[in-house]
Amino acid sequence: MTPFLTIQQTSASYPVFVGRGILAKTGELVSPRGKVFVITSPELRERFGEPVVASFGGRASLVLMEEGEANKTIDTANAVVTRLIELDGRRDSMAVVVGGGMIGDTAGFAAAIFLRGIDLVHVPTTLLAQVDSSIGGKVAVNHPKGKNLVGAFHPPAAVVADTDLLATLPRAELLSGLFEALKGGVIRDPALFELFEDRRDEMLARDADVIDALVRKKIAVKAEIVSSDERENDLRRLLNYGHTIAHGIEAALGYAGLTHGEAVAWGMIGANAIAVRRGILSQGDAARIERAILQLGPQQIPRLDRQQVLAATAHDKKNTGDSRVMVFPSRIGDCSIVSDVTEKEISYGIDAVLERQGL
Amino acid sequence: MTPFLTIQQTSASYPVFVGRGILAKTGELVSPRGKVFVITSPELRERFGEPVVASFGGRASLVLMEEGEANKTIDTANAVVTRLIELDGRRDSMAVVVGGGMIGDTAGFAAAIFLRGIDLVHVPTTLLAQVDSSIGGKVAVNHPKGKNLVGAFHPPAAVVADTDLLATLPRAELLSGLFEALKGGVIRDPALFELFEDRRDEMLARDADVIDALVRKKIAVKAEIVSSDERENDLRRLLNYGHTIAHGIEAALGYAGLTHGEAVAWGMIGANAIAVRRGILSQGDAARIERAILQLGPQQIPRLDRQQVLAATAHDKKNTGDSRVMVFPSRIGDCSIVSDVTEKEISYGIDAVLERQGL
Repeated sequence: MTPFLTIQQTSASYPVFVGRGILAKTGELVSPRGKVFVITSPELRERFGEPVVASFGGRASLVLMEEGEANKTIDTANAVVTRLIELDGRRDSMAVVVGGGMIGDTAGFAAAIFLRGIDLVHVPTTLLAQVDSSIGGKVAVNHPKGKNLVGAFHPPAAVVADTDLLATLPRAELLSGLFEALKGGVIRDPALFELFEDRRDEMLARDADVIDALVRKKIAVKAEIVSSDERENDLRRLLNYGHTIAHGIEAALGYAGLTHGEAVAWGMIGANAIAVRRGILSQGDAARIERAILQLGPQQIPRLDRQQVLAATAHDKKNTGDSRVMVFPSRIGDCSIVSDVTEKEISYGIDAVLERQGL
Repeated sequence: MTPFLTIQQTSASYPVFVGRGILAKTGELVSPRGKVFVITSPELRERFGEPVVASFGGRASLVLMEEGEANKTIDTANAVVTRLIELDGRRDSMAVVVGGGMIGDTAGFAAAIFLRGIDLVHVPTTLLAQVDSSIGGKVAVNHPKGKNLVGAFHPPAAVVADTDLLATLPRAELLSGLFEALKGGVIRDPALFELFEDRRDEMLARDADVIDALVRKKIAVKAEIVSSDERENDLRRLLNYGHTIAHGIEAALGYAGLTHGEAVAWGMIGANAIAVRRGILSQGDAARIERAILQLGPQQIPRLDRQQVLAATAHDKKNTGDSRVMVFPSRIGDCSIVSDVTEKEISYGIDAVLERQGL
């Protein structure tokens, strides 16, 4: 099978396979040098883990870890490392990580630190993981003081994205991925954005052609960005569009009650308000983006302390020194990075989000 | 000050400064982009930590961690990360790690995983750390199942090796570094080896010229090897000369009772016995190496279960698949990697070490 594309990063290059029914062919798509460890959760074991193990024809062992954001910790990663050691994992072993972003990030981090890094294959099972977290080489776990504060750059050896899996994805998780894809359209691909305007009903009905087009387009956007810039010094920061206020909202909610995609959706609305006020973005484009977001039906934010949101944005790990960095669209398909954003502006953006609640 | 040399690795290049009294000039030798965190132990705080902090003229904060092999754990690294977060560390922060190998490895690993890696400067305070662990970009912590099983490649931004510090180093730690330096001579530098034959008394009396020559020559050997080959696929494995049996001895002793350098010293004697039996190394060269080692006076091995040593070598993380990989000298200054070593041969090498005990 030919990869959909090959990502060229500074430290590695790797194929991304996209297709229907390819989960059960994972073993044919990658080339392990030694033992294979298929890492997934008890919940995903039967449907996704076992078929991946079988695809390696007896060469692979299953390693189980607990799911859930509360388990996205250094302790869980260390427990995975312990299993790899118990199963006599070596430097030439391969970790095949099957699951959503939490599993990919946590088991991916385990693969990054075990023996200073073994081969890693991502088999993302959610839309968000397929179009976002499995691409680019970032892995991380949370720290009690914040999300993703402990991690590594560890580009995978391959990504295997089976879009058949999205047919049974819970609706909330589908939506979470859709918002992330919509973000990609605003950043860099007007045609991807227009799918949300022109084919929304088919998209929500999970029409195979529309979903496949969306996944490919969003992966292409992210691939282009991470290929040029592995470590987020410049271009990669564009991916943080919507994330400043999103992270603030998530932190203020204790990372509960909203999906990450929904938080980003509200964060884009907040960022757009600041961009319009600065004269960077037209009111017309801002309205188009907002309409596309709201028509997908993001959940309202359960409760929110504006000051808490604001305080949490100050700890954003994108900040260096005292400057606040944000990404603003100038039109649909084009964004830029602004590094002199004031606390007052962020406060204005948060207010814009709060105003949309209860509509 | 001009660096002694600049190491060019695949993912980074960095200067190594070697000199007398340069610890207190660390702040002038490196270029932090943001905040500076000087990480050391309570024991080293006053003599080494405070002068380094002062060298940054008020810009640096002190972070303390516990010393000792028992504390070389992921939990200690995580505790350092927690302090960095509490002190509002950012992506542009710099970790300046002051201490021996345990501190460099553990705090270096913390710097590697905090925010997916911040700038790291090594200020090694022992001979072993100056000539070995601070050079090459490897950082790691131990796992209950083995040494250095969890880690990262995280090349430093600079290394500052102040040879004045070696004047007060405990004799056991001096010896540990000397054995590692002797290993470097056998691997790659006959002139370095000859220092041990011709200037041993001055070396043990810590004559400044001899110590400085030794430090520079050993750093040059390691720099050359890690420059060509960052991730130990080939040339870097030469550095493992003596380490197969050394790790077996250390594991069998529960990592107590011998310094790492002494274990390597005995491991070299064991490896040489196998090399002589294979016809790779002459008996004459083996005798020269053994004499140089024994005249430094390595501690005898307290107690040793041959089977335990042998079992521990099977878990060596250098092994891939079932092959046993060892490094053998062919003459002083030249070594090669052999990947078909049998368990029987390793057993023979262990016996050779045991025979030398009680002499």
